[in-house]
Amino acid sequence: MVLEARDRVGGRTFNQPISNGNVVEGGGEWMYPYHQKLAALAEELGVEPFAQYNEGDRLSLYRGEVTRHANGYSGLDESAAVAFAAICERLDELSAQVDPEAPWLADNAAELDAQTLGAWLSNELSNDVARNVLNVSFGLQFGAPLERVSLLYALSYVASFGASMAEVVPTERWRFHGGSQILSLRLAEGLGDRVRLGHPVQRITQADGSVHVEASGVEITGRRCIVALSPADCRRIDFDPLLPSRRRTLQDCFQMGPQIKAHAIYDRPFWREAGLSGFARSDLAPASVVFDNSPPDGSEAVLIALFQPNPGPSAYGLTEEVADSEDRRREAVLEAFVAIFGEDAASPQRFFEHNWQDVEYSSGCQPFYPPGLLTTTGDAIRRPCGAIHWASTETAARCPGWMEGAIDAAQRVVAEVEARL
Amino acid sequence: MVLEARDRVGGRTFNQPISNGNVVEGGGEWMYPYHQKLAALAEELGVEPFAQYNEGDRLSLYRGEVTRHANGYSGLDESAAVAFAAICERLDELSAQVDPEAPWLADNAAELDAQTLGAWLSNELSNDVARNVLNVSFGLQFGAPLERVSLLYALSYVASFGASMAEVVPTERWRFHGGSQILSLRLAEGLGDRVRLGHPVQRITQADGSVHVEASGVEITGRRCIVALSPADCRRIDFDPLLPSRRRTLQDCFQMGPQIKAHAIYDRPFWREAGLSGFARSDLAPASVVFDNSPPDGSEAVLIALFQPNPGPSAYGLTEEVADSEDRRREAVLEAFVAIFGEDAASPQRFFEHNWQDVEYSSGCQPFYPPGLLTTTGDAIRRPCGAIHWASTETAARCPGWMEGAIDAAQRVVAEVEARL
Repeated sequence: MVLEARDRVGGRTFNQPISNGNVVEGGGEWMYPYHQKLAALAEELGVEPFAQYNEGDRLSLYRGEVTRHANGYSGLDESAAVAFAAICERLDELSAQVDPEAPWLADNAAELDAQTLGAWLSNELSNDVARNVLNVSFGLQFGAPLERVSLLYALSYVASFGASMAEVVPTERWRFHGGSQILSLRLAEGLGDRVRLGHPVQRITQADGSVHVEASGVEITGRRCIVALSPADCRRIDFDPLLPSRRRTLQDCFQMGPQIKAHAIYDRPFWREAGLSGFARSDLAPASVVFDNSPPDGSEAVLIALFQPNPGPSAYGLTEEVADSEDRRREAVLEAFVAIFGEDAASPQRFFEHNWQDVEYSSGCQPFYPPGLLTTTGDAIRRPCGAIHWASTETAARCPGWMEGAIDAAQRVVAEVEARL
Repeated sequence: MVLEARDRVGGRTFNQPISNGNVVEGGGEWMYPYHQKLAALAEELGVEPFAQYNEGDRLSLYRGEVTRHANGYSGLDESAAVAFAAICERLDELSAQVDPEAPWLADNAAELDAQTLGAWLSNELSNDVARNVLNVSFGLQFGAPLERVSLLYALSYVASFGASMAEVVPTERWRFHGGSQILSLRLAEGLGDRVRLGHPVQRITQADGSVHVEASGVEITGRRCIVALSPADCRRIDFDPLLPSRRRTLQDCFQMGPQIKAHAIYDRPFWREAGLSGFARSDLAPASVVFDNSPPDGSEAVLIALFQPNPGPSAYGLTEEVADSEDRRREAVLEAFVAIFGEDAASPQRFFEHNWQDVEYSSGCQPFYPPGLLTTTGDAIRRPCGAIHWASTETAARCPGWMEGAIDAAQRVVAEVEARL
């Protein structure tokens, strides 16, 4: 039996219909070349990937100045490119010493865990342009300023990709026909009425070798229970008996970066007409990264911005007035789009966002450990507590926070439970 | 109207009766010389302080060796004392530049907030003995390894005492006749039936300039509402409309160190008979700090140990097996007492602990900010959200985490609300 709090399956994948049966995604959407488990699952379920639109030049906007670059341009001048390559090599070296299955066992684990990624980058990388690129790309991965993220966790995260820093954020990325949520929708179809929507779990009791789950009127007793929530979201459940001390500290202190995905739908892809890919970076908080997120048939013209409501990876965080008002956020995104792409971007046909900080049942979007937590509690993230097993992308030793990680976690936990039944 | 979740007032002050009408405290108990607001409130309420028992020699146990020192001995050899004085001076200098009302405005606030206190101490202080003393004393203040605590927050915390590092942990400390909880009990008496026990607040709604509170069957509407909870405990309340983004990030990511206070009650004060004060330090996890916590009339002989269930400030954290079993914790504490004080400590008449990690309605004991959170969300801790005002010791600019801070916060919030009524 699957108990799902929301009125839909899919968790942090979430299709938002636009028209002609097309969707855009309010949550995770991209498959990278090294997402092998995701590719295999999509194939198994008959879900077709398609390449993210990526033809034409890219734009960047820094300090008020828009520049246009050839597709594939790194955004780095020569000295920045040298500094960037050097720091990536250093990150590759350091992360090669960290086993993402057990980062707390690394040499110097305590020392690495006592530092933040942000402070480390400030010390190691003096080139501002290169640092800004890392601030933005890591900031999007963690949904938080790098000054909040454990260096050891960041190294474990990089190691978990099984790819070098140069390959971590690839130029080629794929999306899915039907939207990424279709993977969960298809899986749920196969389960039929064993999936119960709208049943948030309130309480999990263990006694006499069985486990009892209470979820808004439904009560189920079984031999094993899998909790597929971020450790931070486990705070909402009462466990009886109490979970072990270390596990509770992990849950209470684990952090989830909030993230907003804003979509603007236009009557024509004016950027494509101008020879632009739609990809842009800027130092404007609500548009640190922009993509063309149009459906594969090109029947709609869509730009997407990813940003955080709190001071984030870009040079200037949203002001609080903007962060707390949906209208002001819309204005801020569209002003940024205009600053980057020109007046054509001012008036989309439709505009909507998905703000993961405001969504019930998610304490945020992207997981990370603050300093000192991974070495003291990290080994509790996957360890079963009696008959309770832990899934969710946060528990993955491969691409945590990604769809790949969710699948990795699911496969691991299924093997774990099968071995005990 | 005061809505109290527990069946008692007092929060993290908690009297535990022993006998002859005496009590010991499971929570905050000590008044320091610079706790002026606490002293004034005690006087106002007719609660008498008495000096913590502090006659005789002290013991220390490191690497298996017990040494006996004269009362007042710092536990530091000459080179450690020099290193300790130097780092205290450095902490005083740095904290003098941090205003505890607004630490985020300090010069280099971002840089200081990107570091952990633990990593900073490792860099700045090479003397192991001196570092161990700071690890233990700061560790007890934060209830967590210093590798989890923002350096900026630690500096703000030191600044908030209005005392130099040399005075922060004084040799003279006072307790209260009747136990520290008596302060809240007396205040509650004065409020009569306006205090409703056993009413945890589930929901706070704001509309049309008034605020509506739902608490287990009681519903109250008023013009202003004061929430006197740690930001971390505010996670349990549903706020409608949602609180501002920054405030929610603060609540979701604020950290509370768990702490255990264990009391052993003996038939005679064998340590006093041996010319010992009962004060001891050790590198054994469950006895990093031990005090004589006997009642003022000396009618009972009590030793108290303060420790954390998770790997904490002492050299060796509790193993998980010990951390998660009350029986094993008792064994570990008594073994440590025997190692320090000898066989007389083996068999107390009574033994009990108060474990703040296991207590409902408290997410822990001592507050701290992980790196990067204070500069990005700290200004939300006291700022009212509409008709909701924030109290609790965590919000104090003076001695946060202490009884002094709770009173400071209460006085500030009362002035704040009065100005708006």
